[in-house]
Amino acid sequence: MKLSHRITHINDGGSDGWGLFRKARRMIASGVPVVELTIGEHDIRTDPRILDAMDHAARGGHTGYAAVAGTDALRAEIARRVAAQSGVATTPENVLVVPGGQAGLFMAHMAACEPGDGALYIDPYYATYPGTLRAAGARAIAVAARPEHGFVPQAEDIDAAIDGATAAVRSLLINSPNNPTGAVYDRPALERIGAVCDRRDLWLVSDEVYDGQVWEGAHLSPRALPGLAERVLVVGSMSKGHAMTGSRVGWIVGPAEAIAALEDLATNMTYGIPGFVQDAALHALRLGPAFEAEIAAPFRRRREIARRLVAAQEVVRAVPMQGAMYALLDIRATGLDGEAFAEALLERERIAVMPGESFGQAARGHVRVALTVEDARLEAALVRLLALARELAEERGP
Amino acid sequence: MKLSHRITHINDGGSDGWGLFRKARRMIASGVPVVELTIGEHDIRTDPRILDAMDHAARGGHTGYAAVAGTDALRAEIARRVAAQSGVATTPENVLVVPGGQAGLFMAHMAACEPGDGALYIDPYYATYPGTLRAAGARAIAVAARPEHGFVPQAEDIDAAIDGATAAVRSLLINSPNNPTGAVYDRPALERIGAVCDRRDLWLVSDEVYDGQVWEGAHLSPRALPGLAERVLVVGSMSKGHAMTGSRVGWIVGPAEAIAALEDLATNMTYGIPGFVQDAALHALRLGPAFEAEIAAPFRRRREIARRLVAAQEVVRAVPMQGAMYALLDIRATGLDGEAFAEALLERERIAVMPGESFGQAARGHVRVALTVEDARLEAALVRLLALARELAEERGP
Repeated sequence: MKLSHRITHINDGGSDGWGLFRKARRMIASGVPVVELTIGEHDIRTDPRILDAMDHAARGGHTGYAAVAGTDALRAEIARRVAAQSGVATTPENVLVVPGGQAGLFMAHMAACEPGDGALYIDPYYATYPGTLRAAGARAIAVAARPEHGFVPQAEDIDAAIDGATAAVRSLLINSPNNPTGAVYDRPALERIGAVCDRRDLWLVSDEVYDGQVWEGAHLSPRALPGLAERVLVVGSMSKGHAMTGSRVGWIVGPAEAIAALEDLATNMTYGIPGFVQDAALHALRLGPAFEAEIAAPFRRRREIARRLVAAQEVVRAVPMQGAMYALLDIRATGLDGEAFAEALLERERIAVMPGESFGQAARGHVRVALTVEDARLEAALVRLLALARELAEERGP
Repeated sequence: MKLSHRITHINDGGSDGWGLFRKARRMIASGVPVVELTIGEHDIRTDPRILDAMDHAARGGHTGYAAVAGTDALRAEIARRVAAQSGVATTPENVLVVPGGQAGLFMAHMAACEPGDGALYIDPYYATYPGTLRAAGARAIAVAARPEHGFVPQAEDIDAAIDGATAAVRSLLINSPNNPTGAVYDRPALERIGAVCDRRDLWLVSDEVYDGQVWEGAHLSPRALPGLAERVLVVGSMSKGHAMTGSRVGWIVGPAEAIAALEDLATNMTYGIPGFVQDAALHALRLGPAFEAEIAAPFRRRREIARRLVAAQEVVRAVPMQGAMYALLDIRATGLDGEAFAEALLERERIAVMPGESFGQAARGHVRVALTVEDARLEAALVRLLALARELAEERGP
């Protein structure tokens, strides 16, 4: 039986980028000890206080259908957090609770684009981005953000992508703090991006799931820029900031009219998320900024370890690492691309990192190191990674 | 900012049918005691043994990203249950775990239809059906199943809908046991439906969330009919059979190739469901058929109450009530339509039921009574409902 084109072409454009990750998992399954620095999963589990709240809610009877848009209490608490983070007045009517940031990205593009419309995303990108836009029926169009610009997209490249597109472009997806690059877009960068969106009448979908993990500068939501809020859909999540990746709780924040339409989509797409999970998320948010800082602390420490080690040698260069839980390393001096280097690292050192090519063309010749193992183990792995890079660079000669 | 047509037109075709439900909820909120017989929510909560399993899994560390297609154990257990229920060989590769039956319906239509394709559904229908098809970008086309045919769709009506459609029709959505009518499609009916799907090359999306609640005859999955499995996508759920409505766990069962493509959609649409919820569902399924019978027992009893009371009078007629947790009552002898009757019942007797018109045109002149309050209270409410119907019929005269 024929399946729809949109569902059979989600992963168009070749590999899904997870070949190396799966190879490492197979090695582990067969008993080979591998240091896994691949995915953005905390090395801690969800806090017992949050699990207590979930259990309490479930046993208290919150096991029936919950409000599809989110409970009043959770929407209000998310609105408070978003207002506090961004400085933008936010009410529960601006908030839709969704089953994780991934669902938020999909739903935002369902709202922004008609089938066949063009949807821009920035390369390098989080693995699911182009597939998400295609799953929502849009044409996924990459805009390269180059190493020489600190991986921050340039207005002229966005304009060129729109001018070169064969379809009407309706949206631009950005992510700051950025996975995989660690870039944090500053005010001038966001103002330039916002001006393009305004001029070309685009929705700006802003993936801010790492908004609490900023090591340099400060997080700025484009929703806070003058006149921009009406065209911004912010996607947020409990996954990274509260170590609740598996709970699948996120939100979309945007204009009330868009949120109301998105609630109709939620009714027909998932019919909401579990009430007991919502109560757990509410409890987690009420633990406040101190709790988020506690979850973020290991990544802040490990980022310092990576910076120190990289600074002490000359072969590998680090992208600035201003935020998020990764270090993107430029290994072009080895003569290898990211894929070949990651393969060599896995084969020779039993260390798994993600090739930059998993995240698009612009991160070619880089590898992404997830800062997700404990400090001493990370340090040892990085030392070996840097030694391998030196070795390869020396083999290559000057 | 302009939102997409598909998301702003989900509820095209008028009211969402929930006006009376909301009015009853407002009355309750303002302190008026109303007997609610509106929605398909059990009057019990999720079993503590299932909540124990969830808590155990969460505290045991199953709080990170879980397998997107579902854990191996849950997929295998669902395959076992589906094979046992339907008699069709089913492997984990035929099973995708999804965030509830509603998500299953949405995803199945994303796979079956291109944007703009026609998608058939049977009227009367569960409230979200047409919106779900529109949310998936399809044109929702109703096929009436009339009272005189016991609310079972006829092959000639399906053919006529396809011939009259302005778009290529790619799918047919059926639901047996049926909400709201209580009809259970027998083998000859399903064979006729299957023959149309075969002849017209349609996907058959079979919503079987009430498959454990059959009071007369037996549930038959169209996947079990000779030669039909390759074009059937079955949607199932833990909601009704295991009293886990709020947990949002369901499945799609279908050809392995379709399930693989749907996994790509799941990756980009929601990135799976919580691991601890999957472990809870696994535990619930392992409680076996005896547990499902226990959950179904109150509805079986209450259906007998409704049958007995309706049989003892002549004004209101009951649709057979072969399965599911509702009684659909024909109140046309009162001279009112379902909406007016439900309004009168709420105003005069403080009893809330759903007008048949909430479920489409074919159930006009009916009301749906959810069998979801304890037996004595249900009996008292039905006695008052029948008395009001008699009174209205007598006012009207012969």
